[in-house]
Amino acid sequence: MDVDKQLFEVFAFHGALLLVKTCIMSFLTARQRFAKNIFISREDRLNKKTKIGTGLNDDIERVRRAHQNDIENIFPFFTLGFLYLFTNPALSTATTVFRIFSGARIAHSIVYLLEVPQPARVIAFMIGNLANVFLGFQVLTFFKNSM
Amino acid sequence: MDVDKQLFEVFAFHGALLLVKTCIMSFLTARQRFAKNIFISREDRLNKKTKIGTGLNDDIERVRRAHQNDIENIFPFFTLGFLYLFTNPALSTATTVFRIFSGARIAHSIVYLLEVPQPARVIAFMIGNLANVFLGFQVLTFFKNSM
Amino acid sequence: MDVDKQLFEVFAFHGALLLVKTCIMSFLTARQRFAKNIFISREDRLNKKTKIGTGLNDDIERVRRAHQNDIENIFPFFTLGFLYLFTNPALSTATTVFRIFSGARIAHSIVYLLEVPQPARVIAFMIGNLANVFLGFQVLTFFKNSM
Repeated sequence: MDVDKQLFEVFAFHGALLLVKTCIMSFLTARQRFAKNIFISREDRLNKKTKIGTGLNDDIERVRRAHQNDIENIFPFFTLGFLYLFTNPALSTATTVFRIFSGARIAHSIVYLLEVPQPARVIAFMIGNLANVFLGFQVLTFFKNSM
Repeated sequence: MDVDKQLFEVFAFHGALLLVKTCIMSFLTARQRFAKNIFISREDRLNKKTKIGTGLNDDIERVRRAHQNDIENIFPFFTLGFLYLFTNPALSTATTVFRIFSGARIAHSIVYLLEVPQPARVIAFMIGNLANVFLGFQVLTFFKNSM
Repeated sequence: MDVDKQLFEVFAFHGALLLVKTCIMSFLTARQRFAKNIFISREDRLNKKTKIGTGLNDDIERVRRAHQNDIENIFPFFTLGFLYLFTNPALSTATTVFRIFSGARIAHSIVYLLEVPQPARVIAFMIGNLANVFLGFQVLTFFKNSM
């Protein structure tokens, strides 16, 4: 049950990179909230013009959707990728999958926030999701006798 | 700080199974979006009849709610279960808890998506959530001197 | 690639504490739903007066927002904190960061649910988020040659 040190380091780098990226989405949402003066709870009111609610402005909702999509994809990647480390993968294969996932998810955020026309976002999403499913099936195959 | 190999393998199998299940929810949402021609961002528009927005169709929202419930329960399970591995649990106890959680969460998705009458969903949810709380309390008790 | 036992134990305690706290949010939402007789799916209907939908009551939505904020912050903390264990941090520094994060997130929930006036929630949120970013940058710096 040993993990290759070099493999772990590549995983740690990409895992941390994507999780920091996800945390930054909170600040991008906050920035939009201050710019639009629309907040989410009544105690957040800055002045008389502040609106309170969700779904009032698409620029705010866009950042929130991108953030939610990160939660749905980057969090499972971390756990599936971690289990994958224990399946004795080739370092080159694993590194390639981790880099592809990183690239796809960073592209996904940029494409979503800058409203790049489709199918850019679908492609970025699909690459990330298929990487997750790939990692998951590798783990399931490897540990299939431990159901 | 050693983890039993067999125990880890059971955990890895069920962890990967549930995370892949969670990732598949994205595809089920997409399927509903194409079927209903309702999307979430204006650049997703397929044709003139495409509607853009959230909350417009309950079949779509139902998959999204099931997905969110997975996030709220399966992601904590992975981390609590992982910490639990380090509390020297009996293999049979741990295996039973992991299998019960797996079964409850797969049942939860099926029950939610097929709109099985209550209390089916409440029961599936409660079993999963109590399994998480059980794992959490085992970890907290074991490491209580490390606050 | 060894982790200090004592360090791991402190991490395990705070990780489990915060994840159990997050799981409890589901029960607090359910409590509000029963109190207000407002549920989320049509099969949840208790009686003729039951309302079905989202956004109908701010007490319910408030718990859900607090829960979502936990997901956005506590889940990344667990993974970033775990990777941080492998960067040979000083035990005292790591313990301090974990305790600060724990305190900030427990304060965040209390402040949000009791509707304490701002800037209490912003401060609790910022401390937690900056702790995450700190952990992330420590990991990225340590593993920067493993891109």
